[in-house]
Amino acid sequence: MENKYWIGIDFGGTNIRVGLFKEDKLIHENKFLTEADRGPDYIIENIKKNIQIIKGVHDIEGIGIGMPGPIDPNKGVVLSPVNLPGWDSIPLTDILTKYFEVPCYIENDCNVAALAESLEGAGKGLNIVFYITVSTGVGGGLCINGEIVSGASGSAGEIANIIVSDKPVKHSFLNPGSLEGMASGTSIIKLAKKEGLNVNHAHEVFRLADENNKAAKEIIDSVMDHLARGMAAIAHVIDPNIFILGGGVSNSVANFAPNMKERFEQYIYPTMRGKIQVKASQLSEPGMLGAMYLVKQKVKNINSKEVL
Amino acid sequence: MENKYWIGIDFGGTNIRVGLFKEDKLIHENKFLTEADRGPDYIIENIKKNIQIIKGVHDIEGIGIGMPGPIDPNKGVVLSPVNLPGWDSIPLTDILTKYFEVPCYIENDCNVAALAESLEGAGKGLNIVFYITVSTGVGGGLCINGEIVSGASGSAGEIANIIVSDKPVKHSFLNPGSLEGMASGTSIIKLAKKEGLNVNHAHEVFRLADENNKAAKEIIDSVMDHLARGMAAIAHVIDPNIFILGGGVSNSVANFAPNMKERFEQYIYPTMRGKIQVKASQLSEPGMLGAMYLVKQKVKNINSKEVL
Repeated sequence: MENKYWIGIDFGGTNIRVGLFKEDKLIHENKFLTEADRGPDYIIENIKKNIQIIKGVHDIEGIGIGMPGPIDPNKGVVLSPVNLPGWDSIPLTDILTKYFEVPCYIENDCNVAALAESLEGAGKGLNIVFYITVSTGVGGGLCINGEIVSGASGSAGEIANIIVSDKPVKHSFLNPGSLEGMASGTSIIKLAKKEGLNVNHAHEVFRLADENNKAAKEIIDSVMDHLARGMAAIAHVIDPNIFILGGGVSNSVANFAPNMKERFEQYIYPTMRGKIQVKASQLSEPGMLGAMYLVKQKVKNINSKEVL
Repeated sequence: MENKYWIGIDFGGTNIRVGLFKEDKLIHENKFLTEADRGPDYIIENIKKNIQIIKGVHDIEGIGIGMPGPIDPNKGVVLSPVNLPGWDSIPLTDILTKYFEVPCYIENDCNVAALAESLEGAGKGLNIVFYITVSTGVGGGLCINGEIVSGASGSAGEIANIIVSDKPVKHSFLNPGSLEGMASGTSIIKLAKKEGLNVNHAHEVFRLADENNKAAKEIIDSVMDHLARGMAAIAHVIDPNIFILGGGVSNSVANFAPNMKERFEQYIYPTMRGKIQVKASQLSEPGMLGAMYLVKQKVKNINSKEVL
């Protein structure tokens, strides 16, 4: 069987990574600054140029992209990501498909991370995988049987907006008492500064709590409790085989996954306890890999339908 | 092609319905009192006898059962439903499979209702269907592509236990501030009695609210608001194409579905609004029908795997 080539793109607010895959193996990668302030036309030209360079003489079968939402994965349209000024209903997949004459698919970054972890990471071999990232914000992605569940408008896994508290804590345009407002890196820093703690990153607050700083302990306790409530809500909806915890905050704190497991199990039915794994993410850069799998699966599904 | 016969059983705390289906069509039904207080041995004999009567001379392909949880659908074991004293880890499917020498599958009643609504009711033709029952309690069931999503321990859709409030309202063994504690028929009656309203059913409180009774209005407002928070949490996890609302409370209140749609949309992202339908359940007795589809799908899946 002939090897096929695919492009996987991790499109972030700061960096863009374009990877060339020979089947499932990354064989070449370009990483460059997004330069978000230069707007969509410039960035799209830059992506095109880098795909062109990296594909070289190879014919590619398709292009997959993971990027911050909100996007419409069904139409392949970038709606209006917070960190990408000027991107307002840009039909990114159409643009790339026209230019390279191959299929192109897009999903939000948490969904492609979930897909990569589901196929090659901590969720390998498991049926229902729920990926949660706790970093500046909070995000999620759901895979069932190794495929992304996108939802009616591509919003499955958009857990930042789940209400986990009656407290009128406003964060961005989210609901008062939202999961992201109560349990993100940003909210940890905000609470810490309010208490006069001199910190720049959430993991420093975790460290202070370990050192028995009273204010830090209360903040971390509240943050982990609200995250546990969010995880319990997710568990009562989809009852995953595993929660995979990734993102800057999760990754920088020792024993975060086992500690969260202990906490969230208090909020689920006794009959559910011990049956949902909670593990740290295993892939350091799931973006390109997940984006490659995304397009590969979509193309495969279309082909198998055509045969039928 | 020869027609095949299936048994679908709706096993409730008060009544049991045993139905004989010729392919998807119900051709004979027996309904009898559960007599829960007579314990599992008596009830199982009664079920066996009624299956025997109803199947008559026909060979059946399998038996499907929908009943109140907690159950373990993977092992076919009834764990300990609140309204069925003495049922404690009873391997119901094994018992019936041994006796009738056909495959037998079990799922909780909300999941089979979701399956029936997904295949023949309000969710027909839709990809992701989330069924919610609001009656004495609150329950849910999830179907994707016309099949039940059961979850790691059969607890997908067990939304009663989702925390929707910081208020320490305790209800049964659920979390304080649980969805069922804040928004079930039982909680409506409890709140109404506390306010001195002379009512016996939740729909009377809805009626009083319509008539501008201040206390009733506040109760209904709080109940619908907490239900809306629960629906928003579900939407942020799975982003269904439709919410189907069933159960005694939903069915007895005019315009319940459109009113809930309006409320829950306040708690989801603007980009999601208008894309999730909210409709009343269409099937009056989804139990037997869903149970029949359950066993039929399982048998079909096993056969198709054997062919591969």
